[in-house]
Amino acid sequence: MELEEALEEVRRRGCKTVGLQYPDGMRLRAVEMAEEVEARTGATALVAAEPTFGACDVPRMPVDLLVQVGHAPMPYLNLKDVLFVEAPMDLPSLDFLDGGLSRVGRRVGLLTTIQHLPWMEDVQGYLEARGKEVIVGEADGRIAHAGQLLGCDVHTARVIEAQVDDFLYVGTGDFHPLGVALATEKRVVAVDPFTKEVRDMAGVKDRILRQRHAAIAAAQDAQTFGIILSRKVGQYRMALARQTKDLLAAHGRRGVLLLMDFVGPELMKGYRVDAFVNTACPRIAIDDAAQYDRPMLTYPELEIALGLREWEDYRFDEITADAAV
Amino acid sequence: MELEEALEEVRRRGCKTVGLQYPDGMRLRAVEMAEEVEARTGATALVAAEPTFGACDVPRMPVDLLVQVGHAPMPYLNLKDVLFVEAPMDLPSLDFLDGGLSRVGRRVGLLTTIQHLPWMEDVQGYLEARGKEVIVGEADGRIAHAGQLLGCDVHTARVIEAQVDDFLYVGTGDFHPLGVALATEKRVVAVDPFTKEVRDMAGVKDRILRQRHAAIAAAQDAQTFGIILSRKVGQYRMALARQTKDLLAAHGRRGVLLLMDFVGPELMKGYRVDAFVNTACPRIAIDDAAQYDRPMLTYPELEIALGLREWEDYRFDEITADAAV
Repeated sequence: MELEEALEEVRRRGCKTVGLQYPDGMRLRAVEMAEEVEARTGATALVAAEPTFGACDVPRMPVDLLVQVGHAPMPYLNLKDVLFVEAPMDLPSLDFLDGGLSRVGRRVGLLTTIQHLPWMEDVQGYLEARGKEVIVGEADGRIAHAGQLLGCDVHTARVIEAQVDDFLYVGTGDFHPLGVALATEKRVVAVDPFTKEVRDMAGVKDRILRQRHAAIAAAQDAQTFGIILSRKVGQYRMALARQTKDLLAAHGRRGVLLLMDFVGPELMKGYRVDAFVNTACPRIAIDDAAQYDRPMLTYPELEIALGLREWEDYRFDEITADAAV
Repeated sequence: MELEEALEEVRRRGCKTVGLQYPDGMRLRAVEMAEEVEARTGATALVAAEPTFGACDVPRMPVDLLVQVGHAPMPYLNLKDVLFVEAPMDLPSLDFLDGGLSRVGRRVGLLTTIQHLPWMEDVQGYLEARGKEVIVGEADGRIAHAGQLLGCDVHTARVIEAQVDDFLYVGTGDFHPLGVALATEKRVVAVDPFTKEVRDMAGVKDRILRQRHAAIAAAQDAQTFGIILSRKVGQYRMALARQTKDLLAAHGRRGVLLLMDFVGPELMKGYRVDAFVNTACPRIAIDDAAQYDRPMLTYPELEIALGLREWEDYRFDEITADAAV
């Protein structure tokens, strides 16, 4: 099981209490895993019950060691007493890649998410055996592994953009490859290892950009903005929130800082603001915008709304290691 | 406005940042109040966006001073850098009390919630002028004011139970007077100052006790319990959670500690447990039980389910100052 490494560390440290944090998809096994930790270490387990969104999202727990399952650490956070235990998926037959081969050029920038990272070497071999040159971008302060994408950070794509013809994303879901499509000029082809579906992200990018254009237009005349700030450790961008407030003031608008942990539409009801600027996870504005009853912008989108940035210079809102001030 | 005292303190301390936390009912004014704080003190305001349930619920905020509006402090928490600003309601005509006069005996234990506390002296005079002897219970470590009720603490009723014929509750809602009805043997009459409705809590008590009886019966054969522990500062009962876990183990059942902040049904989905024991706000088990798809008990109810306590000795789950360990 994924927890062997964690069990060893719990015993080595002589922990009396250990926190366990799982992605929602592993909730069904949470109780069983907690009982196994207790039976095999003698420590008392506390399960973090709230939804978990990634290594950015480490709860405060009254424990000697917190074990977050399923994510790689964000190195720059340098969290004490937190152990990240990856939970990689089993490698399937690699023929799911075949459908993507003809859709990308010779020089392929290979990208994936944490669950599939151990496949990278095999995937690279498979692609190279079929005539591709595979390029993998190095990690940095927020990303633990070469080729790894976060929903909020596509550094590993940006650093190799100039060297590749196209990007190939191995994984599920739209948000990670969409970020790459928004942050670079290159084609992004996503191959799903389970459904074997192959998608060019250009269509998703077009649809999202139309939605973002509409949100920016709708916020253009807003006078009062709620500036969303999350206290989640890897989403906390106080410097950006203050910068947003100052920018609004300089343009005769008003901004009120709203602090929360999880960001959701229920929390926003009732506040007398005309629009929101989100400084937490960029996914909230891009992916979940339809759930909110008022326009929600990212900071670069606010710049467009205020006439400080051209629509043609649309920029994906990435969180970088220097954002946490 | 309620904030004058807070503005003074912000200026006195030279705060650069100030947190503002309001009850949900004041959310409509939150932005305006934040702007007033900023305009009059020069500090930057951060509004706590999450729902607030009382003085038990003080969020972590990156500010020099946190101002919680609408609640009295819980003295035993002794929170640094938190200022509680009460937001009392205006005193209406006292004739709403008339309907309650004939429903209570001569010796009346007077109880209310924080919003109505400044009325107490007038209410007492009104009742005394009509032949009642009014008795008000002293405050303690969790309750700031004589006669004040919390949803989780009816100390001010218990300490005067022997001296009164009946209790008279001035305020809205069922939960506070219900706690008194559950925790004492005396009649509790609730008078609503706005609707002027008068209710004997015996009916509500009977209904709730039937529901609790059903929940206890449904949990009797549960093998695995999720033990709910909230990290909210005044709801955190780690000692009780551990005691629950030990009690379950001693009776051949299993208990897994689930840690969260706000407790809600969405957070419980998926966990493989047969029932819950709630150590956070007692209101969650008593008031909100129908929202959960499995039985939820309080600790005294678990004792009944395990055959350690007689149903006739049903005890209301109160949080006391020594619970926070």
